[in-house]
Amino acid sequence: MSRIRLGMVGGGNDAFIGAVHRIAARMDDRFELVAGALSSTPEKAMESGKALGLDPDRTYADFTEMAKREVRLKNGIEAVAIVTPNHVHAVAAKEFLKRGIHVICDKPLTATMADARKLVKAAEASKALFILTHNYTGYPMIRHAKQMIADGELGEIRVVQAEYAQDWLTQPLETEGQKQAAWRTDPERSGAGGSIGDIGTHAHNLACFVTGQKVESLSADLHAFVPGRQLDDNAHMMLRFDGGARGMLWSSQVAPGNENGLRLRIYGEKGGLEWAQEDPNYLWFTPFGEPKQKLTRGGAGGPTDGTRIPAGHPEGYLEGFANIYTEAANAIAGKPAVYPTIHDGLDGMKFIDACVKSSGRNGAWVKL
Amino acid sequence: MSRIRLGMVGGGNDAFIGAVHRIAARMDDRFELVAGALSSTPEKAMESGKALGLDPDRTYADFTEMAKREVRLKNGIEAVAIVTPNHVHAVAAKEFLKRGIHVICDKPLTATMADARKLVKAAEASKALFILTHNYTGYPMIRHAKQMIADGELGEIRVVQAEYAQDWLTQPLETEGQKQAAWRTDPERSGAGGSIGDIGTHAHNLACFVTGQKVESLSADLHAFVPGRQLDDNAHMMLRFDGGARGMLWSSQVAPGNENGLRLRIYGEKGGLEWAQEDPNYLWFTPFGEPKQKLTRGGAGGPTDGTRIPAGHPEGYLEGFANIYTEAANAIAGKPAVYPTIHDGLDGMKFIDACVKSSGRNGAWVKL
Amino acid sequence: MSRIRLGMVGGGNDAFIGAVHRIAARMDDRFELVAGALSSTPEKAMESGKALGLDPDRTYADFTEMAKREVRLKNGIEAVAIVTPNHVHAVAAKEFLKRGIHVICDKPLTATMADARKLVKAAEASKALFILTHNYTGYPMIRHAKQMIADGELGEIRVVQAEYAQDWLTQPLETEGQKQAAWRTDPERSGAGGSIGDIGTHAHNLACFVTGQKVESLSADLHAFVPGRQLDDNAHMMLRFDGGARGMLWSSQVAPGNENGLRLRIYGEKGGLEWAQEDPNYLWFTPFGEPKQKLTRGGAGGPTDGTRIPAGHPEGYLEGFANIYTEAANAIAGKPAVYPTIHDGLDGMKFIDACVKSSGRNGAWVKL
Amino acid sequence: MSRIRLGMVGGGNDAFIGAVHRIAARMDDRFELVAGALSSTPEKAMESGKALGLDPDRTYADFTEMAKREVRLKNGIEAVAIVTPNHVHAVAAKEFLKRGIHVICDKPLTATMADARKLVKAAEASKALFILTHNYTGYPMIRHAKQMIADGELGEIRVVQAEYAQDWLTQPLETEGQKQAAWRTDPERSGAGGSIGDIGTHAHNLACFVTGQKVESLSADLHAFVPGRQLDDNAHMMLRFDGGARGMLWSSQVAPGNENGLRLRIYGEKGGLEWAQEDPNYLWFTPFGEPKQKLTRGGAGGPTDGTRIPAGHPEGYLEGFANIYTEAANAIAGKPAVYPTIHDGLDGMKFIDACVKSSGRNGAWVKL
Repeated sequence: MSRIRLGMVGGGNDAFIGAVHRIAARMDDRFELVAGALSSTPEKAMESGKALGLDPDRTYADFTEMAKREVRLKNGIEAVAIVTPNHVHAVAAKEFLKRGIHVICDKPLTATMADARKLVKAAEASKALFILTHNYTGYPMIRHAKQMIADGELGEIRVVQAEYAQDWLTQPLETEGQKQAAWRTDPERSGAGGSIGDIGTHAHNLACFVTGQKVESLSADLHAFVPGRQLDDNAHMMLRFDGGARGMLWSSQVAPGNENGLRLRIYGEKGGLEWAQEDPNYLWFTPFGEPKQKLTRGGAGGPTDGTRIPAGHPEGYLEGFANIYTEAANAIAGKPAVYPTIHDGLDGMKFIDACVKSSGRNGAWVKL
Repeated sequence: MSRIRLGMVGGGNDAFIGAVHRIAARMDDRFELVAGALSSTPEKAMESGKALGLDPDRTYADFTEMAKREVRLKNGIEAVAIVTPNHVHAVAAKEFLKRGIHVICDKPLTATMADARKLVKAAEASKALFILTHNYTGYPMIRHAKQMIADGELGEIRVVQAEYAQDWLTQPLETEGQKQAAWRTDPERSGAGGSIGDIGTHAHNLACFVTGQKVESLSADLHAFVPGRQLDDNAHMMLRFDGGARGMLWSSQVAPGNENGLRLRIYGEKGGLEWAQEDPNYLWFTPFGEPKQKLTRGGAGGPTDGTRIPAGHPEGYLEGFANIYTEAANAIAGKPAVYPTIHDGLDGMKFIDACVKSSGRNGAWVKL
Repeated sequence: MSRIRLGMVGGGNDAFIGAVHRIAARMDDRFELVAGALSSTPEKAMESGKALGLDPDRTYADFTEMAKREVRLKNGIEAVAIVTPNHVHAVAAKEFLKRGIHVICDKPLTATMADARKLVKAAEASKALFILTHNYTGYPMIRHAKQMIADGELGEIRVVQAEYAQDWLTQPLETEGQKQAAWRTDPERSGAGGSIGDIGTHAHNLACFVTGQKVESLSADLHAFVPGRQLDDNAHMMLRFDGGARGMLWSSQVAPGNENGLRLRIYGEKGGLEWAQEDPNYLWFTPFGEPKQKLTRGGAGGPTDGTRIPAGHPEGYLEGFANIYTEAANAIAGKPAVYPTIHDGLDGMKFIDACVKSSGRNGAWVKL
Repeated sequence: MSRIRLGMVGGGNDAFIGAVHRIAARMDDRFELVAGALSSTPEKAMESGKALGLDPDRTYADFTEMAKREVRLKNGIEAVAIVTPNHVHAVAAKEFLKRGIHVICDKPLTATMADARKLVKAAEASKALFILTHNYTGYPMIRHAKQMIADGELGEIRVVQAEYAQDWLTQPLETEGQKQAAWRTDPERSGAGGSIGDIGTHAHNLACFVTGQKVESLSADLHAFVPGRQLDDNAHMMLRFDGGARGMLWSSQVAPGNENGLRLRIYGEKGGLEWAQEDPNYLWFTPFGEPKQKLTRGGAGGPTDGTRIPAGHPEGYLEGFANIYTEAANAIAGKPAVYPTIHDGLDGMKFIDACVKSSGRNGAWVKL
């Protein structure tokens, strides 16, 4: 099977998420990175390309130039990964979509609702695919949970508890020259959401993905605990889903001791499911009135789809992320595939927008 | 040291919480049960008294009669435990308070705010003590957490996550002749709160006890998922504390797999604390930027106060409950003691009242 | 139901295990402590008796005197708890057994095999009962495990992993005036076993109790890591059971971080069971090829026998210990009861003896 | 940085460990698979090569032919991964070593001691490197544990508890046509060790790697519980280390509920460490007399070396395995590197040999 030729926008030296995308793309040997506009600073773009072993000829400082040139090459890129700060997603993605190059884009979709809507139009007008890396949907146990609910094993869903807690912004890191913190707390580059855009969207997306329900309305209380911070670093909200479930969602980047605490708990008439990202190979299934079951990835009662190694051999974040890339490869190859789409991205933007509006109105319920 | 002579109202055969109070009172040998009005049904009262080895002469079918007679006995009861359904608390307690008999009363304080306010007056007018069995404050690790926060180990508190989830009302048990379910879902006997009155008050009380802050206002979404149920069986809410912290609280009795899932997580500028009632001998302390610590009851970094046995020898629910009784014994003996008072009980009633009002106004913020 | 009148030998002020026995005896209100020879030092005996509210008239400095006098009293003790250092067990127990007073005795049975054999004869000659407080067999989940194996849910047992690790003797505490450490590391008072006598016997007893098999032979490597210590503080051994199972047993009091780490894992042809004393309300059941189950005390798939409160309300060490006392009360009352007997005590002594012999012969297999 | 050209012997379609090696080699983009003798069956070799996208010209059915031809190619392989059943390791490795091609070989080193000794000579005579994939030493927390011990944080090591338990051979899978089970239970292909060769060697290697001590002698009890099985499926043993530590080791493939339960616990004078492979991102550090610490990969108190992503983003088995490959790449590039060598492999063979001998002599202590 030949590899899909991949370009990358953003992800130069020191960028955490760029390296993640590259490993994920490589994991199952379905992609080959052949071009990059890894930084908007020319020298940094070249250095980064060199470090990755890219042909200098295909190392660009400008993503538009990359799109224009690659589309004309005989062996030009077939897909591009966009891993820039949020405000660049839309403008970059459109350059590739309009040239028929598939886009694999980081979340949240864009920095503004206006951009998001324009990008949806661009994607709909393109024959190329748009894949959003809501990577946590790639975890096998998450997909298993979704299937169990679809199969009715929990009965009608009643309660959803979603949370995503971190601690890395407990102190004003953005004033200390930390680049990640700087752009993620800057409305110009991140958009209107702080923790809710960076991580709350993941929790929202995961809750919807697994339950098969959409959030119909929410009531939010956003807050920045760190003095001077412009965007929320902690958010509380109550949710109502279109299928009748109710829920709560907590996102925080100021909760000491929480490294990457994405956690989902779902309860229905007949049973419950609990999953934690930091322990991703397990899923608790609690059928009402029966013993609690700990399902394991690849093991008894657990899934084998999307796994590479047997039960007891832990897979992690990179393998879950790689599953999104592998699904993308399948989709590009015209095979059946499950992956987050631009519409999931738009839902995420609506979620951020509703959070900000609700909180601005002191928690009034806002429809998505 | 001579034992305090104790009477009991309610707690006849089959009553879960009555048996708990008796074991708790006995644990440290500070009380002796000598009289009881264990049921309002005379035969059941007598049978229950007999089963407990009470003097038939001091086994009553009417708590008023017990109060009147015991107060005149040379060795009459010095204290009484009230373990009836909620709507009886106030009327019973007043009979003993006005006769100078100390009252140890189950929570929530009463079924209605009106009753609560009257009972506060009665308690204030009495020279006897009023102790509310918000038993979870008796756990040594909870007291240790409170002390750590008071000592400033977490810095200013920012975020409080409190939850109390159970599953025993997942199905309409109250229609199947289960007595506990029947009164706890009946507004006449329980008051306006379902899950919030039965268990949400514990979570609320614990959050306030540990942080040293009071809930200033809340926004709630109460719901009864089981068709026909008159009181909430699931409640979501957002909290604002008077010290600047913000929080969320979830109480549910329809979350399959949750047996008695009371859990508290608190995050401040400098660190976090996490505690779960089902694993009560441990407290996670996460000073920001340092390794996570698992503090153990009786062990390194953990408390020895309120413990009876060394680290690694687990204590549980009964021992925590017994600590409330032992504090009550200390208070009755005129020694320093920490225990939940009638004012904590009134705060709990305000909490229930605010929840119901807020939910009735579609989640508007309501002050307590 | 009237309470059984209980005396106590040993257990004066500061003695950990004496206080445990008293709480355990009181838990279910089946015993009443009415007499004591709490210390061999007269003043300490009196002080300790006073602190416990004992009648000074029934506070003795000599257990023989207590036995002689109590047996003649109209309401003299019916049973006695012996909670002294090991070397006193036999001589004290015989005084009561020969007078028809039931004996509830701490483990290990005695300090020497010779004493053990004499005590067995004394017990067999007496009409009184002898109950050994191998308290860990009182945990409901342990009894449930035993029943599951007896019911064949694991098939034929193959592998037994037993361990009991503590850390309190990591340093030479016995040279620093710590009384517990002093007698437990002294061959005169403890017998030939250090960690194996103090805690290894519990692990051995539990493994046999749960599997229903006896250890037929063992190969042991005992060692004292702390310089100057006379008895083993760490022991490794391999086991062969009479029912065909094989096992390992580790006991240690020099393993930092282990507070009271008694743990049992049992694997058969059809499934496995795992239990840890520090988390005693749960039992893992792993039927081969099926999802892992976490059984809970009082909950779905778990036992209600021997429990006092519902699932999710943790019981602990004292409740498990109390179950031994309650079984003793039942036995004394002539009802069916399950409790560790003097023969279990003799098995424990054979275990200690075999360990010492095997280790002395560089690990040669020694029959019990 | 250019990639190292890699060949592979074994690892055709359906072979678990071959796929693992390929992902591990690819993870950090330091190797490129360019040739393979993936099966000794010519058609399967070609099919497997095709599935992997290998040049048919460099797809071989015979590893000797591959060695001979590749060494003469301008861009021939620089290194080869050997992932066959054990009995082929030596003969294949020698073909490459003698031609100066680096060998990355699966464990155990060989099927027999004789083969092992010959292979050591061949490796010593070659200028090429020999890297053994004792992959569990690649986990960052394991390397951190090793460093902590080397730094004296535990003081002198006293006790080592190592175990590796699985359940996949609980039933006679080898008689049901399962290929993995067939060769792993066959003395001709696996050598004299069953569970001890397949997994016990990992536990042995890990214990030595982390403590920095070697096993000096051991006493073993090997057993095959499944009727008709020729090699041990369960092994118990006691260990004595050359630095004074003592230990136990349990390996089992018949322990239901254990998926891949490799676990290491080490206790010294000053503290303890505990690690479990199924939860590899954490390391428990228990300094005596201080609170227990849970160190996290990439987090406070934990290592960042050998990690790719931040704390809370779990890495797993493949990332740990990849670290061995990346160290191999560093070594091949002449940079400092830590990896298991042929001498570790020989130690593993001595371990298997000693186990078999000791068990044959009913557990007599055998020197390694």
